[in-house]
Parts: sequence; structure tokens; C-alpha cells
Amino acid sequence: MEIAATWMRGGTSKCWVFEVEDIEKTQLTPDELLPRIYGSPDHRQLDGVGGATSTTSKAVLVSQDRSGDVDVIYTFAQVGIDEFKVDWGSNCGNCSTTAGLYAVENGWVELADGVTHVRTYNTNSDQVIVQRVPTPGGKLPQVLDAMIPGTVYPGYEVGLGFIEPAGKTTGRLLPTGHAREKVDIAGTTYPVTMVDAGAPTVILPADALGLHELPYAQWRTAVHPILDELDQIRRAGAVAMGLASTREQAQRAVPKLGIAGPARDAECDLEVLMLSMGRPHPAMPVTGSVAMTMAAFTGGTLPTGLIDPRILPGTLRLRTPAGVLNTFLDDADGEMLVGTNRTARTLASARLHLPQARADSSANSRTEGPQSCVLPA
Amino acid sequence: MEIAATWMRGGTSKCWVFEVEDIEKTQLTPDELLPRIYGSPDHRQLDGVGGATSTTSKAVLVSQDRSGDVDVIYTFAQVGIDEFKVDWGSNCGNCSTTAGLYAVENGWVELADGVTHVRTYNTNSDQVIVQRVPTPGGKLPQVLDAMIPGTVYPGYEVGLGFIEPAGKTTGRLLPTGHAREKVDIAGTTYPVTMVDAGAPTVILPADALGLHELPYAQWRTAVHPILDELDQIRRAGAVAMGLASTREQAQRAVPKLGIAGPARDAECDLEVLMLSMGRPHPAMPVTGSVAMTMAAFTGGTLPTGLIDPRILPGTLRLRTPAGVLNTFLDDADGEMLVGTNRTARTLASARLHLPQARADSSANSRTEGPQSCVLPA
Repeated sequence: MEIAATWMRGGTSKCWVFEVEDIEKTQLTPDELLPRIYGSPDHRQLDGVGGATSTTSKAVLVSQDRSGDVDVIYTFAQVGIDEFKVDWGSNCGNCSTTAGLYAVENGWVELADGVTHVRTYNTNSDQVIVQRVPTPGGKLPQVLDAMIPGTVYPGYEVGLGFIEPAGKTTGRLLPTGHAREKVDIAGTTYPVTMVDAGAPTVILPADALGLHELPYAQWRTAVHPILDELDQIRRAGAVAMGLASTREQAQRAVPKLGIAGPARDAECDLEVLMLSMGRPHPAMPVTGSVAMTMAAFTGGTLPTGLIDPRILPGTLRLRTPAGVLNTFLDDADGEMLVGTNRTARTLASARLHLPQARADSSANSRTEGPQSCVLPA
Repeated sequence: MEIAATWMRGGTSKCWVFEVEDIEKTQLTPDELLPRIYGSPDHRQLDGVGGATSTTSKAVLVSQDRSGDVDVIYTFAQVGIDEFKVDWGSNCGNCSTTAGLYAVENGWVELADGVTHVRTYNTNSDQVIVQRVPTPGGKLPQVLDAMIPGTVYPGYEVGLGFIEPAGKTTGRLLPTGHAREKVDIAGTTYPVTMVDAGAPTVILPADALGLHELPYAQWRTAVHPILDELDQIRRAGAVAMGLASTREQAQRAVPKLGIAGPARDAECDLEVLMLSMGRPHPAMPVTGSVAMTMAAFTGGTLPTGLIDPRILPGTLRLRTPAGVLNTFLDDADGEMLVGTNRTARTLASARLHLPQARADSSANSRTEGPQSCVLPA
């Protein structure tokens, strides 16, 4: 038995994209079909198309929306490796881009001259994400040239746009009503911007911490001695934004805290470092990039004062510890979209061969094979 | 640009099989094409079809032999992961099976009623390997049911047969002219069988070492205290077989030494443990399996005396530390073939999308991406 599937890289993940109709034709549930197709349970996934790591054992199930509310309905599946099991619990940002690109490549959406907006509905998170795919002249570019850190070949640029992300927690983009505030911690006053976009976030300028004197590469280690102080600032922000009555009662995860400084080279527009659960984040949480981007495009905030006013309207390049991240704010169609750009490309168009079912498919297998590659002369 | 390819599991490896003609159509050399298609250089091979481990970053290039000497000509390629590089230095037994199965599945060979012999020529090793694929009624079985250790789903059985492997080093299967010999080490006499098949090999019965009293699972650790003694037996065999003038002059790698005992359950026909470079082998070298199989099917040897005479003619199940290995001796067509059975199956029939070339394709990339899977609510 065979099933059609398309292998795509989305951001820094690899996933197989299946059409729901094709899965239905097999008369198997995705919970039965996917582990079998992926070669699970086997820590090496030798017997199937899985990649034996969490970033390469992923699937996306897509279908056209007949009702017309959106263009694509998609579901993300994390396919078990050692276990004969599929996890449907959350969405994946990287793999989300494959749903948008799949719709574009398969004619599920009319291509605009400029940027095509693909409305995608993710069933895991019950969320509409509007994807932006550049289509100059009403078609995909002949030459793929969009690069992101962590990938070695270019793809198509795919932006994941979150609709009207401001005020989801507090009701307002600027929960205190001001674009800039001050916070006092043990006799020191810190200037901050507090925004609620993606997640409530407290943003500090790098120069208030002396980080502007250090190369960006040293920021992550430089903040270690002041993590307690930064957490106090974050907790003060929680109170100011009405998220907690006292600093002690502030949650550990919310609000987030970000540090921002002006670009010191032409590769980015803003240098940023996010803290997550009290530690410097090795890259950039998507929520943090939404907060930083909306803050940067909101008059009077600290980030706005740090960026060159001549940058392209609506796009921002954030330096993060893992590389430069492109974000955007797009309100062209009367709907505000804020998000990050990734790249995606199709690796293979395939027909996958379903293996025989196993009686003991729920058991794990860790056996190493006796087969050696060395042959006698 | 796209190229047709077939993804196959061969034994406990995964490899993409390309037809040489299809590669030629791309006007790229395999050294340029394969790393690009596989997503190299990248330790995760996220941007391509490689599996980011040595057992899953392999390719086989196949073509039909127009001269008719063999059915298939194939070349094995180990595709670099961190490096933009292809290694053509050696053949791979696991992947060899994909060349045989590919020929059967694609009509390159006429299928016999019973077992089809596919003559394959490997260019890396300049060697003809005759592959045996069961084809009852002149076709591949509808239901794949051959299992080998280390895999979780059944495949087709594919035997890799080495042609006339006896006497390649010494000129005779039994270099001393006798099926059984005795070797004296420090006053103790050991019965041995010495054969030259695959590689010159000295075979000792387990009971001469007291191993017959131990469960097979304990053999590997049980031989540790007697490794010096075993090496002396091996060196005495080297002299007896004419491979060295004195025990001291015997090579470290040749002859090999194997221990054999009778089966103690119905899952195998013989329990064997090979020593390699002075240590117990964790599985079974192919050369050792050839030697043990030919010895078992040669009248008067020690292994012959250990196996149940009612076993299927020409097939042998060897218990090894890594699982039971099926071997065969086939002289039906007047040509002696000795080898091991593996299983293989097609995972996917695909068209692979070639990414844009990179200017700096020779550089390594170890960057982690900043993209997180966690999306804002």
C-alpha cells in the first residue's frame, strides 16, 4: 500500500506533509499510519521515513477548507520515535510554514502580485495564522534565495503572521497606558517599555545595564551576575501591568523580559536578548519576537528610539544569540499581522510504501543489527 | 531541478538509490549532486534527504549492464554529513541488497520460480556479488515477512552470495588437507577445524573451552580470561595453514578465530562467537559467517558434527551476540555461492528537489537556528 506525501523543510524542521484525503483512503487512522510510515518504534527509525530526532520526526496533515473561511486547515503531528505513538498536543511554528507553502505550490490559493497571504487554520491550537509568501509577478520566485540561520540552502520566505496580537492578556498593547515607564529596584531607576503583544513583556535598553559597551556576543554571559536584578525588574513590570498584586506574586514565566540595543552593524536593525524562566534564551521565543516587533513599531517606546527610522516599513531584523531573525508587522489589509519570517522548501515529492503491520507494534525496539558493512574481498 | 530516486532500507541501513542515467541528466557530478541533495554540509542535514547519521547518509548508484555480463552495476557512496564530500572508498553490504532488490522491482532481471539470482557488480570493490531473492511463482511475495535483528518491519529476504569463496588465500578450503586437526598449547590439546573461506579461520568447539556449560549470553564475558590462550591457538593455526612460519610471525587479523557450539533452542542451528583483533566481536563479521557456513556444510568438520543433520539443506541460522543471522550455501547453478541473508524494502519512490547551489558549499555549518516551535496563543 502506498500513500502520496511531500517532504518539506519548514524553518529548521523537516516534516512530511500528507493530504487528509490521502490518509483517509488508506482506511487507517493517523495514529496507526504515521508511526508505521516513519519506522517507529525504533530509536533509529531505519524502517521508515522518520529522521530519528524530534526535529525530523514530524508530520503535517493538510486539507483545503471547503467552507472558504480559510485556505488551508492543518494539523501538526509529532511522531514518536522509540514509541508507537503520535503527539497531537501542540503546534510547531517551523512546520506551520509547510502548510502555507504547500497551498501555494499546489494551487490552493490565488497568488497575488507581491505578497500572497495564505490563511491557515491550525487545529492543534485552534488558531488562524496568516502566512505571507512573496510572489512577485503573481508567482513563486524562480530562484530560491531566502536564508535563515541553521539551514544551509535557501528556501522560499514564509512569514507566520499572528492576527491582532496586541492586548491578548491585559486588553491593551500598552497595559500602563504609556510607551515608557520607570521602575525602581533598590534605589536604582530603570527606564522600561512594557507591551502586551504575543505575551506581556518588559523591555529594557541595553545601555541601562552597561551592555552597550560590550560586543553582542558577550551579552549572554554578561547578564549572569545581574539575573536577580533583572528578575526584580520583571516582577515590578508584572505589578505595573496589573498581572500581579505584589512583586512576590508575579509568575515565573509571565511577563517576559527583553533587552534591546541599537544595531552596531548593517546586518540587523536591533540587538536583542530575551530572558526565559530567569535565564538568557539561546535564540528568540516567537512570543518575544512579536512583543519586540510591535514595540519597535509603536511610537514613543524605547525600541523605537533605538532603530534607524529609515528601515523598511514593517520589517525588522533582530540580532539574537542564534543569528539574525526577520520579523514583520503588516496591516495592509486592515488586519494587523505580526510575525516572523522563516524559509521553507520542498525536498521531495514521494509515494511512501506502507510496511506490513506488526503484531507487537506497541513494543519498543532497541536491538542493534548484526549486519556489518564490511564484505569479504 | 528534480531527480528521480528510490529510498530503500537495506539490512540495517537506509539509502537512496539513483539510476546513473538520471544523475547524468542533471549534468552534475555525483560528488556535487549528492551532498546538495542530502543537505550537507550540516550535522543535522535539515536541508535535504540525508538522515544525519552514517547509516542513513548513504547512496547507491545503479545501472543496467548493457554488456550482459551481470544484471546490475552499482556503486556505493557514503555521503558526507558535516562535510560537502562523498566517500567512494568501500562497498557497504547492507546497501548492496538495495541494488539487487531494485533490479527485481524494476524488471531488470527475469524472475525465476523459486529464487531469482541477480548478478550484481560492485565498482567500489571490483567484485561480483550474486544476490538471491525468493520469488515463489516467479514474483515477489505479496506479503513481506522476512525479519532481521535491528529492524522493526519485515522486508523481502535478499541474500548476498559470494562466488566460490573457498581457498582465496591458501588455494584450498581445508588448507591442511584435513577437516579436523589438533593444536597443542602449553600442554593442552585443542581440537580445531581450519578453513579458508571468506578468510582463513580457526574454529574451536565450545566444549573444549567449557563454554557449553554457560548460557550463550555469557560467552562474550566468559572468554575474557582466556583471550591469550585463544590467540595462541589462532597463531598455531596460522602456522598449520601455512600463513606464517612461526606463531610469533602470525598476523594479528588473519587467520580469524571462531567458537562454535550446538544450538540449545529452536531459534538457531549453531551458536557462534567470533574473535576479531583479539576481542570477542559484538556481532558477526561477514567473512566469519562465510567461513562458519562453509565449514558447517563440509563433511567431517567440527561444526558439521554440531548441527542437526535434519536442517534445511543449504541454510544455516547462526546465533551471534547481536541476534540470529541467516546464512546460505547455494551451488544449484554449478557455481558455489556462500553468504548471508538480509532483508530490504522500498520506503519511498520519489522525485527529489535539488536546492540552489551555495557559493560556499565547501564550508561546514554548525549554526543552530533561532526558530522555536512554541507559538503565541
